[in-house]
Amino acid sequence: MAVVGLGWFGRDIAIPGIERSDHCELGAVVSGDREKAKAVATEADADRALTYDEYADGAGADAYDAVYVVTPNALHLPHVRTAAAHGKHVLCEKPLESTADRGRELVAVCDEAGVELMTAYRMQATRSVRWVREQLRDGVVGDPVQVHGEFSFDLLADGDPDQWRLDPDLAGGGALVDIGVYPLNTARFLLDADPVAVSAETTERPPEFDGVEEHVAFQLAFPDGVTASCTASYGAGTANRLSVLGTEGRVVLEPVFDVDTDRTITVERDGAAVSVDVTEPPEITEEFDYFATAALTDMETEPDGADGVVDTEVIEAVYESVDSGRRVSLPEE
Amino acid sequence: MAVVGLGWFGRDIAIPGIERSDHCELGAVVSGDREKAKAVATEADADRALTYDEYADGAGADAYDAVYVVTPNALHLPHVRTAAAHGKHVLCEKPLESTADRGRELVAVCDEAGVELMTAYRMQATRSVRWVREQLRDGVVGDPVQVHGEFSFDLLADGDPDQWRLDPDLAGGGALVDIGVYPLNTARFLLDADPVAVSAETTERPPEFDGVEEHVAFQLAFPDGVTASCTASYGAGTANRLSVLGTEGRVVLEPVFDVDTDRTITVERDGAAVSVDVTEPPEITEEFDYFATAALTDMETEPDGADGVVDTEVIEAVYESVDSGRRVSLPEE
Repeated sequence: MAVVGLGWFGRDIAIPGIERSDHCELGAVVSGDREKAKAVATEADADRALTYDEYADGAGADAYDAVYVVTPNALHLPHVRTAAAHGKHVLCEKPLESTADRGRELVAVCDEAGVELMTAYRMQATRSVRWVREQLRDGVVGDPVQVHGEFSFDLLADGDPDQWRLDPDLAGGGALVDIGVYPLNTARFLLDADPVAVSAETTERPPEFDGVEEHVAFQLAFPDGVTASCTASYGAGTANRLSVLGTEGRVVLEPVFDVDTDRTITVERDGAAVSVDVTEPPEITEEFDYFATAALTDMETEPDGADGVVDTEVIEAVYESVDSGRRVSLPEE
Repeated sequence: MAVVGLGWFGRDIAIPGIERSDHCELGAVVSGDREKAKAVATEADADRALTYDEYADGAGADAYDAVYVVTPNALHLPHVRTAAAHGKHVLCEKPLESTADRGRELVAVCDEAGVELMTAYRMQATRSVRWVREQLRDGVVGDPVQVHGEFSFDLLADGDPDQWRLDPDLAGGGALVDIGVYPLNTARFLLDADPVAVSAETTERPPEFDGVEEHVAFQLAFPDGVTASCTASYGAGTANRLSVLGTEGRVVLEPVFDVDTDRTITVERDGAAVSVDVTEPPEITEEFDYFATAALTDMETEPDGADGVVDTEVIEAVYESVDSGRRVSLPEE
């Protein structure tokens, strides 16, 4: 693997995840900062330390077979273009890009090059979430009716926020694109369905949140009258919860979205509730091994590029709903 | 008190609540069914058992100083008109009426007669809910940002549903007007604010839910970017929860909406969570004593008629949003 982007997540979460994995090893690290790349390469025993320019030029491409892109959202497309040009498989962070058009182009680039593309939806590699999906499919709470999802924290509480997240051009949006995408994608994953419409509210708060929303509330309509009531915030206390109410009960995951957190799953039905505290394998390692398996075999990748594009379309529909004051319909895939 | 309407809530909840109260006593019971009225009057030791027609004619009006109206929603107005005509104070169940116009007329009728009118928002008499409101006012979780509220059960699970709740003319709507009004009014009460707009989704399911929605999801926008993501369902498992996320933490009440249930209040902030299981005085008795105090003194009633009218306006805005596919603005009070 080449890890492209050495921010907190790439350096502290993804690289240790790769080191623990069965089917991946670290071949190269790529950063805008040569010294940082060198330091991380030494620490993580990577063969190559590359700048973005060197990576774009194909330097050291024999050191890796696949690329993990974990840069600001609007830089995904050029880095993926490079990977595809060199025939490398791609694991790309969410959201897939900063706009749906760029997301679709990213998918086309990979398709044309014949390389595997997986959107890095960590939740889809999380065993407790996958277990809940199986339970829902088996009808443990009957037919799904209403989802509630919330994910929030105080982005500016520490002194060194990842400032690109507050840059509308680099991020493509605020709390929605970075963390609202968790309840969004996880609801889609658990329901095994895509939304048909969305209504939304956002709040900015200049000067910190200017052109990017601090808070977002969005209400998704799925087929058959199922809804998901989702919120996300960069400027609130911690909320980290997903629940699925069905015709015969409810499943609650809380906490659910943090990295490698212990989950608690509660299943309620027939007047009783059972809670299970779950410690599970590191999901980032599961994710990398899943990606490697998909890249090395004929297995279909579940969170593929098309999955990532749907969320970029929903994100744009959220902003369109805020601007127009309308319930915005989503294209059928 | 005269209790007008002897369905489950009037007979099994309200009358025992009155019997336990300090400032109310039962003077009359009123029903469409003379035998039922007689049986309840005997059992509850009420002076008078009246039919609706007798009540409307003013029979036995000296047996009571105030009226508790707990009939189907669209019958509130005529029963309140009778009460006002005889100079009786009024405690009227929620929603205040089946339409906002009728709700406003109900308020005008009481104003003109100079009688006290209270909308029977049980949550506003519930000590745990009132305590949470005080905590929120004191800033225990900072400034409110996002509310989630859900209330659902399976109305048709037992064999004898209150069928007027499924009659659009008598009820004025489905799950929203009967149970969605709980998260709606309680969010308004806790935030001490009224919504400025709403976007909504509803689902009917004929033949049982025909002209009345089985499920509803509605997203309220409050001033200053605060939102409330609410759901209610007549056709799902049990959900009964309200949470307020603030800039510095979160308060969760679960369960919250059932009658005389033990509540659990959880306050989360600074990385810690404290849960308190609350057994509190019977709220229906608190409600009747509060009403009696307001009627017998100069005290202002907090959940007054205007409070009830706001919810009927929000309810109409919900249906307008569903019909138009638009975010519907609410009138400023």
